[in-house]
Amino acid sequence: MVADIWPQPGTPLSQVMTPLPVIDERRLAANIARGQGFLDGLGRAFRPHIKTHKLPEVARMQIEAGACGINCQKVTEAEVFAEAGFDDVLITYNILGPARLARLKALNSQVAKLSVTADSALVVEGLGATFAPDAPLTVLVECDTGGARCGVQSPEAAFALAQQIAGAAGLRFGGLMTYPGPGGAAQVEAFMAATLAKLAEAGIDCPVVTVGGTPDFFKAGEIPSATEHRAGTYVYNDRAMVRAGHATLEDCAMHVLATVVSRPTPDRAVLDTGSKALTSDLLGFDDFGLIEAYPAARITGLSEEHGVVDLSAVEGRRPEVGEQVRIIPNHTCVVTNMYDRMVFHDGEVVTRVLEVAARGTVW
Amino acid sequence: MVADIWPQPGTPLSQVMTPLPVIDERRLAANIARGQGFLDGLGRAFRPHIKTHKLPEVARMQIEAGACGINCQKVTEAEVFAEAGFDDVLITYNILGPARLARLKALNSQVAKLSVTADSALVVEGLGATFAPDAPLTVLVECDTGGARCGVQSPEAAFALAQQIAGAAGLRFGGLMTYPGPGGAAQVEAFMAATLAKLAEAGIDCPVVTVGGTPDFFKAGEIPSATEHRAGTYVYNDRAMVRAGHATLEDCAMHVLATVVSRPTPDRAVLDTGSKALTSDLLGFDDFGLIEAYPAARITGLSEEHGVVDLSAVEGRRPEVGEQVRIIPNHTCVVTNMYDRMVFHDGEVVTRVLEVAARGTVW
Repeated sequence: MVADIWPQPGTPLSQVMTPLPVIDERRLAANIARGQGFLDGLGRAFRPHIKTHKLPEVARMQIEAGACGINCQKVTEAEVFAEAGFDDVLITYNILGPARLARLKALNSQVAKLSVTADSALVVEGLGATFAPDAPLTVLVECDTGGARCGVQSPEAAFALAQQIAGAAGLRFGGLMTYPGPGGAAQVEAFMAATLAKLAEAGIDCPVVTVGGTPDFFKAGEIPSATEHRAGTYVYNDRAMVRAGHATLEDCAMHVLATVVSRPTPDRAVLDTGSKALTSDLLGFDDFGLIEAYPAARITGLSEEHGVVDLSAVEGRRPEVGEQVRIIPNHTCVVTNMYDRMVFHDGEVVTRVLEVAARGTVW
Repeated sequence: MVADIWPQPGTPLSQVMTPLPVIDERRLAANIARGQGFLDGLGRAFRPHIKTHKLPEVARMQIEAGACGINCQKVTEAEVFAEAGFDDVLITYNILGPARLARLKALNSQVAKLSVTADSALVVEGLGATFAPDAPLTVLVECDTGGARCGVQSPEAAFALAQQIAGAAGLRFGGLMTYPGPGGAAQVEAFMAATLAKLAEAGIDCPVVTVGGTPDFFKAGEIPSATEHRAGTYVYNDRAMVRAGHATLEDCAMHVLATVVSRPTPDRAVLDTGSKALTSDLLGFDDFGLIEAYPAARITGLSEEHGVVDLSAVEGRRPEVGEQVRIIPNHTCVVTNMYDRMVFHDGEVVTRVLEVAARGTVW
């Protein structure tokens, strides 16, 4: 609704209106190259998750670097990328209900290589009733290897569901999928190896074992059964990825620019970045982002349009009213979802402003 | 980007795609009538905060019920409502920087009664340098009465800033503004009464004392110095307002519809509502929303597209894969900001689908 707030290419970041997330082009390119290079060296396929950027333009950079395809979470997210021409899309979600299944069927006729996941007989039945042998759908089994979210609970259950998929006329068994939990690589490998043994014994081909996550990115080699890695956050990185040891602060491509709007007391600053700008995602931290120039400052509270900062531990100079600061967000993906466009820069000068095409696609 | 997901009027809610927040028309109308009726009875002006709905259509219902004008938080939010014809707008924010001041000046020529707040000499100087006597801007002093966000810290500081505003050629002193803190009405009244005494002594007219908040809505009478109340959440209500004693579950006009997409274990369900649908806003709760039909269930974790539910305390029937459930969100305002449109219903049948005109207006 408010179109003219977005800066033109060539604008210095010091002149943009805050709050504004911005992406450092060089760090973005370096993160893409580093991630792809690592998995290339491992001989492992890489399927970036587009949830972090939600931008066909950035997904294209990832494909050009060597990614095998993209990972989406919802049907409507995949629709945006299908429309932009992506032809290898994995939707890691249980797809249910007539409306969504009808959309999935249309999507399958548009995308050359579409696959989805399932973790229950009921979901597989719904997919089986929707697709026919002349235009089958590829379905992977989602496995709970300790992540405690979705997924079958045992190699036996994974095998049984794979059999059901393989036996459905309109479906193809596409392999095994998981998002690792606290048990990490060892637990994933044990689950996958046991399931693969059962599938081999039954003569069911398992073309793909896809595992995921940025925190475990550089441990991908510890899961020899895997054929493919999925990761989203690696492309921008964030404070949580620095904590996880995946990246340094200098690898963080997204900053949220903020302005100090109030200094009510010597120990308190208030920023124009509230929960509509940074989101309330703590991701295990006890504050809402890292202010680069004042690392001892703590963003202790967010209301919708204000971020309250505790300066009591800041020695020396403290931020003043009107000063622009850069925040490394706790979780970059959720910040992306708040904005209709994303601003890119090189050396603090705006390079391009892209529509966040898949913002808000929760269906 | 995904336009055709929105249901047509006449569609039963059981057939819509989830996740989806929906607004109960009757509860909405009742909340508006109840809030306005209470303040009318008190002889207190009511200025609803549009952050909760971000919809000119609902703001119009509030004005028609008797509200004196609207409250916005950011300039771009106010621009959306100015465009829709609202002529009495208070922006409760420190407005800084040449870009925003230029927009504010344009807005002041468009809105008959525009006012803003300030809490520092620097902000008042910026406003003073922008506006001229032929088209002055009305500025209120923001007071920190215990909320520990923005605001001057004492009646003395409030008086000094009021003097600065009253003495600026392009500005008019508009009054005092606060958002109460844990100290509640008593602390607000003490601060305001002391400041009013100083202003009266100096012969500075204080036309408005505006206080705010839905939690303290029905305690507005305990602040006799106030002339105006501001509140946003009362229009929809949410789980936090039920906890605060402002509303009952039957007063909650917003529900987020969700579908169970997985039941990996007897004690675990997974919903299609993650942080992109419900937001991570805990607002002091230790779970992410109340599932109406299963009040003993707890939404213990959100990732972007999944809500993990602990069913261990649910006696009797438990939700099944494919089942639609209604969630009362912890915080309704932040849910509104996630969606491009909002769906209304009467008796579980869609009545209208409105564009959330002020979504994402953080500038």
